[in-house]
Amino acid sequence: MSIDAPICILGLGLIGGSLLRVTADNGRKAFGYNRSAATVDAAQAAGYDASTDLVQTLRRAAECDAVIVLATPVTALESVLPAVVEHAPRCLLTDVVSVKEEVARIVAAHHPQARYVGGHPMAGTSESGWDATDPALFTGAMWMLTTADDTDPDDWRTIAAIALDAGARVVPAANDAHDRAVAAISHLPHLTANVTAVVGAGESNLALSLAAGSFRDGTRVADTAPALQRAMLEANSTALLNALSETIDRLIQARDELRDHGTVEILVDDGHRARLAYDKIAAGPREAITGVDVGAPGWAHEMRRQAHRARVWLG
Amino acid sequence: MSIDAPICILGLGLIGGSLLRVTADNGRKAFGYNRSAATVDAAQAAGYDASTDLVQTLRRAAECDAVIVLATPVTALESVLPAVVEHAPRCLLTDVVSVKEEVARIVAAHHPQARYVGGHPMAGTSESGWDATDPALFTGAMWMLTTADDTDPDDWRTIAAIALDAGARVVPAANDAHDRAVAAISHLPHLTANVTAVVGAGESNLALSLAAGSFRDGTRVADTAPALQRAMLEANSTALLNALSETIDRLIQARDELRDHGTVEILVDDGHRARLAYDKIAAGPREAITGVDVGAPGWAHEMRRQAHRARVWLG
Repeated sequence: MSIDAPICILGLGLIGGSLLRVTADNGRKAFGYNRSAATVDAAQAAGYDASTDLVQTLRRAAECDAVIVLATPVTALESVLPAVVEHAPRCLLTDVVSVKEEVARIVAAHHPQARYVGGHPMAGTSESGWDATDPALFTGAMWMLTTADDTDPDDWRTIAAIALDAGARVVPAANDAHDRAVAAISHLPHLTANVTAVVGAGESNLALSLAAGSFRDGTRVADTAPALQRAMLEANSTALLNALSETIDRLIQARDELRDHGTVEILVDDGHRARLAYDKIAAGPREAITGVDVGAPGWAHEMRRQAHRARVWLG
Repeated sequence: MSIDAPICILGLGLIGGSLLRVTADNGRKAFGYNRSAATVDAAQAAGYDASTDLVQTLRRAAECDAVIVLATPVTALESVLPAVVEHAPRCLLTDVVSVKEEVARIVAAHHPQARYVGGHPMAGTSESGWDATDPALFTGAMWMLTTADDTDPDDWRTIAAIALDAGARVVPAANDAHDRAVAAISHLPHLTANVTAVVGAGESNLALSLAAGSFRDGTRVADTAPALQRAMLEANSTALLNALSETIDRLIQARDELRDHGTVEILVDDGHRARLAYDKIAAGPREAITGVDVGAPGWAHEMRRQAHRARVWLG
């Protein structure tokens, strides 16, 4: 298959729909499926190739040897994969779902012969659905790609090209390292946003009335539809439990310090330092992963090693 | 004193400096003090009336019967109040410091005869200092004013006029209710932001590298200088301890649900509902407090009652 193979996207929500738009806008053949007629009507009205017929869509994918992108919530994967096995068993698969170990497990269970390279674009808003799609959603975003020792280098390059063409930067990682990372920097922030919202709203109407920037920003992701939050968080429960337990331990330590010594020094100093470390990585130029020939011996290991230093693969 | 008396601002950081700018820009006589020569130089270079001489500044305030605005961190109040007592004992006082019971206690301890009406504009960014000042900082912001049964109505109206002239909306409240409210919607969000930053940065460089919107927004206020965060939070320790304890309890409940039943349904559903309640208040038009004649019997009680329904006094 060529590196600019057609793309068939299953699920046209915020991520899948935005990927359909940017890919088609770039001139690559791209088509999609969504079970909702309203979504498909909106996509067609905007000039995109979309259908509510899953079987027909998969047959097209098989005919043109498209890359199939799984872009449904994790909870819907088990309803689409049997159709993929039946109608497009030889197509290369990727996904744009948050958690990687759980998705890999589901793909292996339903489609043991799949050629599959997992992915996760770190892009999103609290909005969802076709109306929120944006072809610029991935511009500058980090896009994690499963990079295991047994990953097929040609397949990896094909999926990486989709991410790069969408404007993203590729972060090679192992599935377990990725899932621990997103538990800490995406799933946990959803829980802290939710709990902050609950405690604030529970205090009084006066509290909500006085709420300003710290509350608004700190609770923003609680605006995300609960079903989407739950699908994402509950699929990564082991890693999330670890991050949540550490959070609880640190908050208990802070409460004891505040109660016994009147200070929040440790948590505030540590938190400020941690945020500055993030600012530095987020604002600084990303160094490119260098000297790695995809497919050469040890390429995947070397990719992961360099990515752990906050480097990205730019193709 | 007239309702548009001159204003003397002690402390020209983000809040005090922005207030100096908007008040002077509106044509009212306004001058300020800051102990840092660099800040005063910057204020003067921008065309504002500022000095590093506290005694001289206070003498000017006494001569023109200015309203004195305490705009230092709470930890610096004890160093400026003795000079106020000595050089401008009859001036009406207000403040723009976060916590109200602690400031009232400090004012009463150092200046028992003070005419004092506390205030708290809900405006700010993670930046601080003169360079961050903005005359539009208070536009549309909520500005809490201490509204107790023994508050002098003329003094209250004078301070309310300062807030309204700055573009803010006045939220009348009792000091204790205010402090509980800001513990929940401002001070607690600082702690959750800090702990989220710590856990994320502690996980791995890969985590910080993949961090996107949920981490960025959820940790934003951890960028605030630690000394400013601590001064604010530690001065409200009782109310903050309650909010923090409730937070810990709810997170433990969520961890147990996730561990034992694989779900985060309760916290996510409650958090989403709470955030929608905030969205509704934040986005909706603020109803005006009506039918209250400042100074009439029971005016302060009626103001507080209406403010608890998320209403504001618009003058």
